[in-house]
Amino acid sequence: MRFFEDLKVGQRREIGSFTFTAEQIKKFAAQFDPQRFHLDEEEGRKSLFGGLAASGWHVGSVCMKLLVADGLRQAREAMARGEEVAIWGPSPGFRELRWIKPVLAGDTITFASEILSLRNSSSRPGWGILEARNSGTNQKGELVFSVLAIAFVPRRGSGG
Amino acid sequence: MRFFEDLKVGQRREIGSFTFTAEQIKKFAAQFDPQRFHLDEEEGRKSLFGGLAASGWHVGSVCMKLLVADGLRQAREAMARGEEVAIWGPSPGFRELRWIKPVLAGDTITFASEILSLRNSSSRPGWGILEARNSGTNQKGELVFSVLAIAFVPRRGSGG
Repeated sequence: MRFFEDLKVGQRREIGSFTFTAEQIKKFAAQFDPQRFHLDEEEGRKSLFGGLAASGWHVGSVCMKLLVADGLRQAREAMARGEEVAIWGPSPGFRELRWIKPVLAGDTITFASEILSLRNSSSRPGWGILEARNSGTNQKGELVFSVLAIAFVPRRGSGG
Repeated sequence: MRFFEDLKVGQRREIGSFTFTAEQIKKFAAQFDPQRFHLDEEEGRKSLFGGLAASGWHVGSVCMKLLVADGLRQAREAMARGEEVAIWGPSPGFRELRWIKPVLAGDTITFASEILSLRNSSSRPGWGILEARNSGTNQKGELVFSVLAIAFVPRRGSGG
């Protein structure tokens, strides 16, 4: 993962794709969001979604999963090049979590992250604050998911 | 679950409590958010969180789980009283998802939902739009989680 100094507003990165199977949709829903349209194909078809739809929290969690995997991949690549690796801090929150279109069983969602703003952290010297739009697009090219994420990113040489 | 006409701005409801065990925190993190401070006690202690911390998506998903369980409970109670039961629609999105304080292993979070606004849906006749603040408070009384949720709620007699 990169240091604050290496980031630029407008940088965009594809972070990976994920196919939501009916089985995964139902399994997540049974544990965390057992609404009828997330649990049963027929109920999904009868709902506003028009099909068995993934819980929005499932979509957000999968986006997080791919972000973390992408970060680890970037870290491994940097280490392989002999570069110092930045370890990002936790996120204080997300804004504007939007489920724009349903994610239905069989849909493949490709997630991307684009840097919207960068600023200094006043509370944590040595850290900067990144704001990024993480989004998901389905196999038809339709935007289905979007969230503004905020993260603490260490500055080079801060020991972060 | 109630109909749009039965809802009032300012209504607040406790929707349930959940204790986040180390095992649950690690299991969710391994699947969806495998960052070091969500996977390992010692790494958590060394991080800004100060302990093994639940993924924010885990906290949000548990809030969803309790909201759904509370809705089903309300529906069962209404049916037992012989009343008509409203079936709420999906949520188009959440705003201002905030992880205010870490949720650490062993913390018990009590979630509540308060109605912030109610308005007509212009796109879907027969439905109203509810905005609610869902929040989580730990056993010390500290607010740890907050999100503004939007939901479609059927009007009485709309067949929703």
